[in-house]
Amino acid sequence: MDGPDLNKTAASHKFPKGRPDVDTLLQGILQGNKVLLGKAITLVESQLPEHRKQADDLLTRCLPYTGKSQRIGITGVPGVGKSTFINHYAQILLKDKHKVAILAIDPTSQQTGGSILGDKTRMEDIYAHPDVMIRPSPAGKTLGGVTSRTRETILLCEAAGYDRIIIETVGVGQSETAVHEMTDIFVLLMLPGGGDELQGIKRGIMELADMVVIHKADQNNLKKAEIAKADYSRALQLFPPNPAGWIPRVRLVSSIENFGIQQVAEDIDAYFLHILSNGYLERQRMEQRKEWFKNTLETGITEYLFQQTELRNIYNQEMEAVAKGITTPYKAVHRILEKFKKV
Amino acid sequence: MDGPDLNKTAASHKFPKGRPDVDTLLQGILQGNKVLLGKAITLVESQLPEHRKQADDLLTRCLPYTGKSQRIGITGVPGVGKSTFINHYAQILLKDKHKVAILAIDPTSQQTGGSILGDKTRMEDIYAHPDVMIRPSPAGKTLGGVTSRTRETILLCEAAGYDRIIIETVGVGQSETAVHEMTDIFVLLMLPGGGDELQGIKRGIMELADMVVIHKADQNNLKKAEIAKADYSRALQLFPPNPAGWIPRVRLVSSIENFGIQQVAEDIDAYFLHILSNGYLERQRMEQRKEWFKNTLETGITEYLFQQTELRNIYNQEMEAVAKGITTPYKAVHRILEKFKKV
Repeated sequence: MDGPDLNKTAASHKFPKGRPDVDTLLQGILQGNKVLLGKAITLVESQLPEHRKQADDLLTRCLPYTGKSQRIGITGVPGVGKSTFINHYAQILLKDKHKVAILAIDPTSQQTGGSILGDKTRMEDIYAHPDVMIRPSPAGKTLGGVTSRTRETILLCEAAGYDRIIIETVGVGQSETAVHEMTDIFVLLMLPGGGDELQGIKRGIMELADMVVIHKADQNNLKKAEIAKADYSRALQLFPPNPAGWIPRVRLVSSIENFGIQQVAEDIDAYFLHILSNGYLERQRMEQRKEWFKNTLETGITEYLFQQTELRNIYNQEMEAVAKGITTPYKAVHRILEKFKKV
Repeated sequence: MDGPDLNKTAASHKFPKGRPDVDTLLQGILQGNKVLLGKAITLVESQLPEHRKQADDLLTRCLPYTGKSQRIGITGVPGVGKSTFINHYAQILLKDKHKVAILAIDPTSQQTGGSILGDKTRMEDIYAHPDVMIRPSPAGKTLGGVTSRTRETILLCEAAGYDRIIIETVGVGQSETAVHEMTDIFVLLMLPGGGDELQGIKRGIMELADMVVIHKADQNNLKKAEIAKADYSRALQLFPPNPAGWIPRVRLVSSIENFGIQQVAEDIDAYFLHILSNGYLERQRMEQRKEWFKNTLETGITEYLFQQTELRNIYNQEMEAVAKGITTPYKAVHRILEKFKKV
C-alpha cells in the first residue's frame, strides 16, 4: 500500500521505524544489549524536539547507574595513530575483563565528513568484540551540541555496564577543551621529533595533559623519540602543578611493535587510584556537571528567546542598530530585556 | 568640618567627588579636553549601576563622532618591547599631526597588579604630550567586562578627536582574540631567534596577525632577526588567505637604533588604504559591533536572571541537583525556563 498508513497507532508515530519505546530501551541498556544501546544513542543524538523529551526521560532513568567508569580522553593530531593506539590499549582492557566504549568528538566532521573512527581497519581487532561499543562523532551544527550529545552517550554506555570509556578527539581545535571537560584523564599522543608547533598541536593543550605518550616510538625512531621524551618532560616541568596533584609522565609507545602500551595502561590505573583517594575525581566530575548545566542553560535561554516572534523581531532590529553604529550594545540589550520581562 | 556634609545637593551625590555631569563631559570630550575625557573614561569603567546608566547616555551621544580612527592592536610577550615600540611609533604619528590614544588590555592585571603600561619610563618621550592619551587596563572581574570597557573607551577617545588608537595587550592569554575583535589591524611583535613556542606566544595568534614585527633587531642581533624573518614569512604562507585580502608582511625593527619603524608606519597606512578601498574595514567593524552586542546580551540575560530571587533560588537548586548527578542538565534547564516564563 502506498501513502500514509492510517492504521498506525499514535504510539508508533513517536519513533522512527524500528525504535522501541523508552521502557524497552532502558531495560535493554541495563541488560547490556548493544543493539538497544545503539538505538538509545541514536535517540539522544536526534535533534527533533519530541525525541529530546524521550531521550531525557531515558537519561534521567539511567542516571542512578552512571559514573562508575574511567572516562579517558585521548587526543593528538591526525596521523599520530590514535586509532591504532586505542585498538591496542582496548585489547589490554578486554583481557582484564573490562567493557570498552570508544566515542569520538570531531569538530571537523561537518566539513570533511568525519576523519576519525571512520577507518574500521585500524580497529579491526576489536571492532566486532561483544564487549566493545564504537560510536563515531555525532552530527551537529555546533561543537556545544556535539559535546552535549557525547556526554549523554557516556552516561548511556555507563548504564550499559561499560566501565572504560575512551573519548577520542583531534587535537587541532577547541574540541580537546571540550573533551577535557567530560573526561577524568587526558592523554596526549605526540609524534617523535619536533616541537609541538611542528605537530600542529595547539599550545595550551600540553598543559591539559595528565599523560603524554610519544607514539610511533618504533625501533628506527627510538633516538628521536628519546629526545622528544626529554623535551616534553622538561616542558611539563614549566607548568604549574596539575590540579589533580599529579605529575604527568611521558612514555614511549610503539603500537606496531607492542612496546610501552602495558606501561601506559598501568599509569592510567595509577592515576585513577590517585584521584580516587584524594577526592579529585569526585570534585572534578561535580565541576564538569556544573559546567554542562551552565552551557545547557545558555543554549536554552537563547532558543527560548528566538521562539518568541516579538522578541526575535526586536533582537534583529537592535542588532541591526548596533551593527550600524546607531545604538550602543548596552542600550540595545536594555531594550530587549525590557521586552523580555513583559513576554 | 568632619563627617558627612549635610548641605550637599542631591545632584552632587550622582558622581564621586569632582566628576561633572554628562553634558559637561560630552562638551569636554568634543572639545578634546583631556581631563574631562579622563573623567569620562573613569565613568564608563565604573561598575556601579547608576554610573552605567550615565555612561551609556554619554556613549550614545558620542556615537555620531566615532569611527574615524585607525584602531591598531599591538601584541607580544612580556619583554618583546611593546612599550618602547609604541613610544617610537607614536612619535612618528605625532609628527604627522595625529592624536594618539594608547589603551591596554591586560588579563593578568587582576593577579599581578598590571604589568603593561605601568612603566611610564618606556613612554617618557610621549607621556606628557598634549596629543597623547594613555590609559592602563581597566579593572574588572572578567575579561569580557574589561574588553567591553575598552571598546567604550575607544569610542570616547574617537569622539575626543584621537584618530590613532593603539590597543596594547600581552599575547599570552585570550586577550589577543578580544583585541582582534575591537581593532582594524593586528600587529604582532616577536623577538629574533626561536620558534613561537620559545617565545610563549599561543599558537593561533600568528594567524590573526596582519603584520609581524621582529623587534629588537639591533645590529648585534641582526643575523638572528633575518633568520626569524625568513621563518615567519614562510609560516605566514602556510595560512589560508587573510580575510582582508591582505598579505601580512614581516618587518625588522630596532626601536633603540631607530631602524624600521618608519617602514612599519607606512605599512600600517598602506593596510588601511587597502581595507578602506575594498570595503573590509566597514564590514569588519559591523561584525565587531554585532559580536559586542551578542556578548552584552548574554551578560545582560544572566544578570537579569540572578536579580530575581525566585529564579536565583531555583537556579541554585537545579545546579546543585545536576552537580550531584540526580538530574540531567536538560531537565534542570527545562524547569528553570518554565519558571522564567512565569516571572
